[in-house]
Formats: sequence, C-alpha cells, structure tokens
Amino acid sequence: MSSRHVPARELPVPATVSPVMQRIIGVDPPSSATSLTVPRTTEQWLELIAQRRERAVESLPRLRERFNVVTEERWLAGVRCYVVSPACIAARNQHRVLINLHSGGHVFGGGEGGTLEAVYMAALAGLRVTSVDYRMPPEFPFPAAMDDAMAVWRELLSGTSARHLALFGFSSGGGMALAMTQRAKLEGVALPAALMVGTPWSDLSKTGDSYFTNAGVDNGLVTYEGLLEAAARLYANGRDLTDPRLSPVYGDFSGFPPTLLTTGTRDLFLSNTVRVHRKLRDAGVETQLDVYEGQSHGPQYLDPDAPETTALFGQAAKFFDAHLGPGPYR
Amino acid sequence: MSSRHVPARELPVPATVSPVMQRIIGVDPPSSATSLTVPRTTEQWLELIAQRRERAVESLPRLRERFNVVTEERWLAGVRCYVVSPACIAARNQHRVLINLHSGGHVFGGGEGGTLEAVYMAALAGLRVTSVDYRMPPEFPFPAAMDDAMAVWRELLSGTSARHLALFGFSSGGGMALAMTQRAKLEGVALPAALMVGTPWSDLSKTGDSYFTNAGVDNGLVTYEGLLEAAARLYANGRDLTDPRLSPVYGDFSGFPPTLLTTGTRDLFLSNTVRVHRKLRDAGVETQLDVYEGQSHGPQYLDPDAPETTALFGQAAKFFDAHLGPGPYR
Repeated sequence: MSSRHVPARELPVPATVSPVMQRIIGVDPPSSATSLTVPRTTEQWLELIAQRRERAVESLPRLRERFNVVTEERWLAGVRCYVVSPACIAARNQHRVLINLHSGGHVFGGGEGGTLEAVYMAALAGLRVTSVDYRMPPEFPFPAAMDDAMAVWRELLSGTSARHLALFGFSSGGGMALAMTQRAKLEGVALPAALMVGTPWSDLSKTGDSYFTNAGVDNGLVTYEGLLEAAARLYANGRDLTDPRLSPVYGDFSGFPPTLLTTGTRDLFLSNTVRVHRKLRDAGVETQLDVYEGQSHGPQYLDPDAPETTALFGQAAKFFDAHLGPGPYR
Repeated sequence: MSSRHVPARELPVPATVSPVMQRIIGVDPPSSATSLTVPRTTEQWLELIAQRRERAVESLPRLRERFNVVTEERWLAGVRCYVVSPACIAARNQHRVLINLHSGGHVFGGGEGGTLEAVYMAALAGLRVTSVDYRMPPEFPFPAAMDDAMAVWRELLSGTSARHLALFGFSSGGGMALAMTQRAKLEGVALPAALMVGTPWSDLSKTGDSYFTNAGVDNGLVTYEGLLEAAARLYANGRDLTDPRLSPVYGDFSGFPPTLLTTGTRDLFLSNTVRVHRKLRDAGVETQLDVYEGQSHGPQYLDPDAPETTALFGQAAKFFDAHLGPGPYR
C-alpha cells in the first residue's frame, strides 16, 4: 500500500460541455487562492472581505433585471434576511418558501452580495427565497452563523408549515444546511421538507480523496492549503475541524428529508459531496446525486448564459416541486 | 481559454474508505496497461486473451464455494450462456432473471472466466443471473457480440415477461447493456424492466474529461492510450469509434427503463458514467447515480471482503427489487 505518484499533466478543456462552460473551465485559477494572499491579521481579513463584498454587489442589479426578480430586506428573529421573489409566482408555489444559506467559505458573502444563489434560484425555479445574512468571522466565529440560521428557521416555522419550506445552500452554505438539519433534529424542531446541497463543504479538515486528486485541477478553489484552510480555522475558532457541527459529514443523517446533491468531476469537494451522499443512502434517505461534467467547485460556474446552470436550477425546481407540499390554493 | 497545467503529485491512500478498499486503492497500476505490452498481431492478442482467461477461471471455484452459488452452461439461441444461481432464491425472486453482459474491454472475459460479476450479483443480490458468453475479437469484431446479446435477449423474452428481466454490466459490459437497450428500442423489442451499468465504457473515443483528469490516478485502467485504445480499435474493426452502436453515449436514451449507474472518484470512466447519467436525466428517465469514494474503474475492486463491494451489490439488489415485477408466486 502506497501513495500514487502522478506525473505533471496538461488538462485540455473538455469538448463535452457547452461553449459557455468551456470558457468557464478554461479560466486560469485565481491567484487569491494561493498562500501568498491569505490574510494574517483581523485587519487583513476585514479588508479582503470588504473587497469581495463590493465586487459581489456590483453584478447584482443587472442580474436581477435580466431575471426579473425583486429583493427586499427583511428582519427575522433579529437576523437580517433578503427575500428574493420572482416577478411571477405560479399558484402551486405561492405557499412555498426556500431558505438559502449563502456560500463564501464561512467568511465571505455577507450582506446583499450573498444573495447571488438566491437570485438564480428564485428566477430559474420560480420560488420565493429567503436568504439569511448570518453573522460571520472574524467578529463572529462559530456558532454565531448557525445560531442565526436556526433562529430564522424557528421564526419561519411559526408562520409556515415545514412541508412548505425547503433549505438549500452551495459550498459552505451547503455544509451549514446539512449541519442545520442535524441541529434541528437534535433540538426537536421540524425539518425542512426537502434539502438541496450543491458541492457542500461537509468536511472542514483535509479529509477526503478529492482534496488530493482534484488539487490544481479545480480552478475555483485550487487547493485546501491557502485561503480555504485559513477560512476553516477562522470559522472554527480553535474547535476541532471534525466536530460534526462544523463538518456535518461526521454527523447523523437518519431521518433526513429527500436530498439533492450536486458536484462536478473536477470539484475539489467531489468527495465532500459523495461521502455525504453515501451516508444519506446508508441512512435510508431518498437522494439524488448529480455530477456535472468538467465542472470545478461552484458557485463560480453560475452563469446566466450557461445551459448547465439552467439545467442545475431546473433540476432543483423539479426536485422541490416533487417534495414540497402544494399548500392551499387561493 | 487554455488547458490547465497540473504539477506532479503524490496521492495518499484515502482514510475515508474501508481497510480492504485502502489496500485495493494502494495497489500499484499493472504494467500490462502500458503500451509496451499492447499486442500488435492476432497471435499476440490470442496469447494475451488466453493468459487472462486462465487467470480469471482460477479464482472462480473458491469464490462460488464461499458465496454458495452454482454455475451451469446453457445455450440460448445458439449462444453459450452461464446461468449462475444462488443456493437459495427468495419466493419474490423466483421469476426474476438478470442478464449480464460481462466486462473485459470487448476483448477479454470470454468463457467461464467472464462470470465473475454474475457470481457476485447472484450471491449478494440473491437473483438468478444469465451471463452471455458473446463472441469477441480478434475473430469476431463488432457487431458479433451485440448480435449474440440481442439473440439471447429475444430468446429469453419468448419465455419470460420483460417485467421480470433486468440487464446489468460493468465497464464494456455496461456500454453493451446501454447499446443493447438502444438497439432493442430500434428493433421494436421489449426493453428490460431495469438497467444497472457499473462504470460503463460509453465512449470508445478519447472524449470526456476524466480520460484526462484521472489518467494515472486510476490504478486499474491507468490511461486510454495503450491496451484500452487498442481494444477499442480491435472491437470497432475500422468503424468510427463515436458510432452510437459502439459508444452508446451518442445514442438516444428516451424511453429507457429505470437505470442505476455507479462509478468512483478516481475512475477513468467517471465522465463516461456521468455523461450517460446526464443524458438519461435529460430524457426524463428515472436514475440513480452512485460515486464511490476513492475507487478507480471496476471491476478490479470486486472483493468479497470489502464492505464497499457488499454495499454496491446490496444497492443493486434493492434497485432490482423495486423495479422488477414480483411475478406469480408458487
């Protein structure tokens, strides 16, 4: 038994995806993923967070206009949320709400800039989305974000039946969605009727095969070492990274609602996704796994012109429609 | 848009699989996959085929004894088959039969040695399996194997309702199972009630991202170049490798029965699997995709002591039970 030596290689852009996706796959990895640019101090973190925040907000107005969705700030249980609504909601979806825990490595994506995935989902799935602007490090490490998510969840449950509520998240938001469902179970609170986790960060420690096999192959995250590891440690704030409240792959999946999981063949989180899928299946949970050809870690592949993006959210729409109660029609 | 340069790496054996699977993943790639040992003449092919055949047959008696299954030769429509039966078949499975198209890269796996997957399935799923010993190159290139498979399929249909018949295959056998279902559709013959394809060779041309990303990462197939490409060309016998009858990923998947697909994160055929999965989903077919952590291309990971192997066939058993008609109990 030995480690395997793999020689240096050139990976061509695959011919088996759309031209738009080929462009996305062909982009060179960002230099910000390297250890050179990892913040060392609280001030450096805050600066990088602000920079990214500004960039995220810039693209939103045009996207909302194109997709014809409206975003409103709304406070729930003392937590700021953004409710993203499509201009037209079908009768069967009037009573349904999706809760989104945004991506951003547990550090980035605060404020309105964190509503990108909510905008895509609202527009392409035709559902109202409540995106939670949970607190984050460096000021608020774990468990602040999870406390906020749970508070919003309880608040929503006070006015809506859980069978009309589903939860989704990508990346760190996917990990949080899994951890929140486990926590709701432990606290005896109703679970969402369905769960969608896109390329979830289910293991904050460097455990899982694709952290190694897809290092440098994934052009979004690139490697665990660098910004990703630093963000994990900032969020964990000294806690063991394999604590199931931080890394839900180590938690209990029994009794989970139907769960849709998505990842890509080049995804650094391919193993983070399929390990959770295996545990869900072992627990007898209804699952759907989708692996997208050639794609690295999301959500950098969110592109309104990519048919693969439309396919992903179209599939999510179908999944939510199958598992959310239709509610009383008016 | 550019190809991505990935530097040389050491891939450790993952900690996230069973000890038996760790041993399998840690095995060094076989030297037989390199171009040095690719046969150049018909005589060299026949010699390599005979060598592999002998090795395959050696392990069978012990495995059959351990699993308590019996194998009988049976000719159907002029084609030799092997019927593998578990010692005890549950009442609900008495009328159900699985048809197996064995693996072996369209060249190897002839004779009784090709019944390995049938033995695992019969034992671990508790179902009777008819394994087709179809003709192969160098004497019989395409379409001989497909003609044999179709002849057996028609013969079985004359005595059994299609709702009691399911089809499965790994690797080249998985590719053939997909191609056979497409051909049955074209010829107006009943389709199997369910289909299971493990890491199917759905594209004989070097098209698909994991032919590149998992080259040298997969310790079974290793690379497309070498034995694999040579086997594809021997089978195709001058035909275009992207002919859908050879590479069913290019064929039509509408109207397919429920299909279970399995692959691994290190599988050279990861893309061969997920590309078919995507097309099935786009065609509205009920599917189940499973990606096994750390595994390379099967069926080298068939091991009676690996819990992952038991899990795979246990899952197949559940899948077939859900989709095969129970038949008249006696």
